[in-house]
Amino acid sequence: MEKIVSLCKRRGFIYPSSEIYGGINGFWDYGPLGAELKRNVKELWWNTMTRQRDDVVGLEATIIMAPQIWKASGHVDTFSDPMIDCKTCKGRFRADQTNEIPCPQKPSKMVSECHGEKTAPRAFNLMFQTYVGPVQDASAVAYLRPETAQAIFAQFKNVLETSRQKVPFGIAQVGKAFRNEVTPRNYTFRSREFEQMELEFFIKPDEVVEAISGKAASAAEICSSGRESAHSENQSRLTSAATDHWGWEAWHKYWVEERIAFYESIGLPRNTLVEYWQKPEELAHYARATVDILYKFPFSKRDAQGELMGEELEGVAARGDFDLSQHERFSGKPMGVFDEELRAAWGKLPKEKQDELWRRYYENRRKYLAKMAKPEETPEQIEKSAHEDADGLAKGQYIPHVIEPSAGVDRLILALICNAYHEDQMPDEKGKLETRVVLKFHPRVAPIKVAVLPLLKNKPELVKKAQEVRDRLRPHMNVFYDDAGAIGRRYRRQDEAGTPFCVTIDFDTLGEKPELKDTATVRYRDDGKQERLAISELLGWLLVKIH
Amino acid sequence: MEKIVSLCKRRGFIYPSSEIYGGINGFWDYGPLGAELKRNVKELWWNTMTRQRDDVVGLEATIIMAPQIWKASGHVDTFSDPMIDCKTCKGRFRADQTNEIPCPQKPSKMVSECHGEKTAPRAFNLMFQTYVGPVQDASAVAYLRPETAQAIFAQFKNVLETSRQKVPFGIAQVGKAFRNEVTPRNYTFRSREFEQMELEFFIKPDEVVEAISGKAASAAEICSSGRESAHSENQSRLTSAATDHWGWEAWHKYWVEERIAFYESIGLPRNTLVEYWQKPEELAHYARATVDILYKFPFSKRDAQGELMGEELEGVAARGDFDLSQHERFSGKPMGVFDEELRAAWGKLPKEKQDELWRRYYENRRKYLAKMAKPEETPEQIEKSAHEDADGLAKGQYIPHVIEPSAGVDRLILALICNAYHEDQMPDEKGKLETRVVLKFHPRVAPIKVAVLPLLKNKPELVKKAQEVRDRLRPHMNVFYDDAGAIGRRYRRQDEAGTPFCVTIDFDTLGEKPELKDTATVRYRDDGKQERLAISELLGWLLVKIH
Repeated sequence: MEKIVSLCKRRGFIYPSSEIYGGINGFWDYGPLGAELKRNVKELWWNTMTRQRDDVVGLEATIIMAPQIWKASGHVDTFSDPMIDCKTCKGRFRADQTNEIPCPQKPSKMVSECHGEKTAPRAFNLMFQTYVGPVQDASAVAYLRPETAQAIFAQFKNVLETSRQKVPFGIAQVGKAFRNEVTPRNYTFRSREFEQMELEFFIKPDEVVEAISGKAASAAEICSSGRESAHSENQSRLTSAATDHWGWEAWHKYWVEERIAFYESIGLPRNTLVEYWQKPEELAHYARATVDILYKFPFSKRDAQGELMGEELEGVAARGDFDLSQHERFSGKPMGVFDEELRAAWGKLPKEKQDELWRRYYENRRKYLAKMAKPEETPEQIEKSAHEDADGLAKGQYIPHVIEPSAGVDRLILALICNAYHEDQMPDEKGKLETRVVLKFHPRVAPIKVAVLPLLKNKPELVKKAQEVRDRLRPHMNVFYDDAGAIGRRYRRQDEAGTPFCVTIDFDTLGEKPELKDTATVRYRDDGKQERLAISELLGWLLVKIH
Repeated sequence: MEKIVSLCKRRGFIYPSSEIYGGINGFWDYGPLGAELKRNVKELWWNTMTRQRDDVVGLEATIIMAPQIWKASGHVDTFSDPMIDCKTCKGRFRADQTNEIPCPQKPSKMVSECHGEKTAPRAFNLMFQTYVGPVQDASAVAYLRPETAQAIFAQFKNVLETSRQKVPFGIAQVGKAFRNEVTPRNYTFRSREFEQMELEFFIKPDEVVEAISGKAASAAEICSSGRESAHSENQSRLTSAATDHWGWEAWHKYWVEERIAFYESIGLPRNTLVEYWQKPEELAHYARATVDILYKFPFSKRDAQGELMGEELEGVAARGDFDLSQHERFSGKPMGVFDEELRAAWGKLPKEKQDELWRRYYENRRKYLAKMAKPEETPEQIEKSAHEDADGLAKGQYIPHVIEPSAGVDRLILALICNAYHEDQMPDEKGKLETRVVLKFHPRVAPIKVAVLPLLKNKPELVKKAQEVRDRLRPHMNVFYDDAGAIGRRYRRQDEAGTPFCVTIDFDTLGEKPELKDTATVRYRDDGKQERLAISELLGWLLVKIH
């Protein structure tokens, strides 16, 4: 891992934030290559998740939002770590880490063993807090969002009403989020400022699917080979014809596979990823199922067999109707939808079927309302509300459920760099083997797609020709032009930057060998092999390779 | 303006942040169309400013940085508005706005006229403040960046050392910034959370240019027709051959013209823009020249002739070596560069020329050091430092100067929407004229490039063909597929979304008229004209139009 951290600094992928002032713990900047890599990844996610689909639209919300949002989401009350204070050294420590952290005054002992007088654990909220407006009082408190998801829920109705979408559909967002981690660690993996790519995909409750389509298919029913062995290759794209009868399990499975396919498409091999289905006791209280997609980082823990266990890149959670329900109750604004198909279908159902679906919907609502009840709410009120909610079905009304694929950008960037990092032996210009560092990025994410290199800097014809090639390619991809130093060293620099192709303009290009006029050498990053291509074909050839 | 605000909400360009909780003053979210528009603009800026150039690289730094950065930049001490408190009503008001703001208790009177007892004005810092880490004390204070620029200065040496760039070169960044404005206003124009696109372009001081190239060209020397009438059309792209002798005035003028050309290239006509050269008394103390690029918003003030005066989209400032010098002094880390060309040239200069350049460089450094001196610094120390700085020239050392084009994304989005908004008369399906709202975006920035519409929803052959066309275009551009409602109404919806082209699949496409088989109707947004194109030619035709 040290070698990767060193390369990232040396080549301008990642720097410590504010380094000239000694840095600031838990904050990292992306340099020129890192910024391009990150842009490519975010653009690919956005393109895959919104632009290439009819059923997902985008949102770009603010980082600071009304504080009630974090009350509704539960973050104000429960998004905290237990902390203890030491009255002797004045230090503050995570209560669950006192066995791992050395005492600041006596580093030979851990905090749990030292003689300092400790307070009882107290909840320390992980949201960064600030004040909005000129007066710093309780009414002006606001938070930096600890996740991008809640903005999507808060704007659900606005998007629904203005985007011509109908359930099932999704809202996607990319943006910064902040968590005041007590112990930032593992380089950029757990930092205090980070970026998320989140989709909230809104679906019909199973009772609604059943009312309309006769049944709600389970995951097993849509996957020929069942949960464990279903791979993305078997997964056809969503078509509305095929999804009408999908229940939440099917949608959840669909998104897990879509997301794994995405990681594979940008160069993370399937065997570096783990699809981890959370056990019932691990699930958040609102989650019906959660799959963590893990990448086997070099710093991951190992299991009993010595295998890397992986660290989370993304969670795909089936969150029921928890989020929209919470915002409905806290804002007093209805978050449900009206579904003409449901209303029409309901009237045609036999009475027993109506009763059965009504009962199941009612039970779900009652359970939710009872669990999240405010102290002043009586059991009678809860039953009455659940009753009203279930009565809504006949009128075509319900609160959508949510499937949430939520990915961390910075973790993914780190995974891509770890996965790309290789050292191998390659002959230098004199044929002597030397150790080479190379980043084998998938061309789709590589910060630079092609380097254009005139063989010599001091031959104007070579430089002119190389610049012509650069200018021809540049409108279509990120091109790096480099004329400084021996050609072998320039290749090595591009290897370290992860540039998949180098194009060299030499005297043959200029016609020294007439049969090679207007051709150039294309060198492959991964194996150093070279071939000769006509310059006129170069753009088309590269476009196929990088897409 | 009300109509524009209403359209933005209705069509999903812009929503109030946290609207279901009553909103939060000064914060705005971008809905599906707004998010796409904003992405397009940011992508075009990034592409123009970095990827299409050899001499600019990107950076993506954190929003929270070490607080010393804001000490060095002057924001901690001087980025404030004067505020007064009313001891009677407990309100807090901007001291310069008491004549404009009604008393909260007696709204018939302005704050300046009411009887409440007021405090003297006090500085209210506009940076949002928070605490990093588990302990909330003075050492943990941090700020949300009020501009993206300072991260570029703080990382200047890291980027220089890892990116293979030499002065002159630039570092570009796009990202969020925050200002706790006392009075957010004019819709999204002045908000508390906003996004910036900033370039810091580092150049050689004029003395260095002169030492190397014999002279430093002024603006007048590179513009045939002088400052006022030089237009971007006359401005050739930067080539290193042509820029060797450019002084700061030439570079400043160059960037003003580049930036105006950018705005023209995304659809803001030259006559909606104002190139405002700040008067000497308006300049910030560190600025040698600043040009504000203004757009004539509907809410802009009017001059004596009744002309809209415009509001700032972007400032292009020549900031001398102020920023890097400040960070050098506050961090104790050298921010200068070593320039082999300068070192070599200096030795060959006649003694008198050396003395003259030394003297000018020395005087500039002395002026800067004296102005920014800390209380403990004596005049002798200042002279000694300036002396050492000037001695650096002979060793090839200097602190680069900066030209800063700094643009606000949200303001630009609002300008693009205001500029695009038109109401006109267009015949409906029965030929009757009706008023139409249309957003005439440049195709480059339009959120949706093309809508694909089957004439009828209930004809499977039409739907199938339309979906084929959609799927063929989609990998290359943002496509909207819509099959709901009368075709005329669907056109109107796309007009309001600013979609430049609609493609309609009808029975002729299917071969009802054999000579029209596999053609489709393309409808132009701006005038409603239609033409018939072969589907096989559609992609190529559209790609030319939208680029």
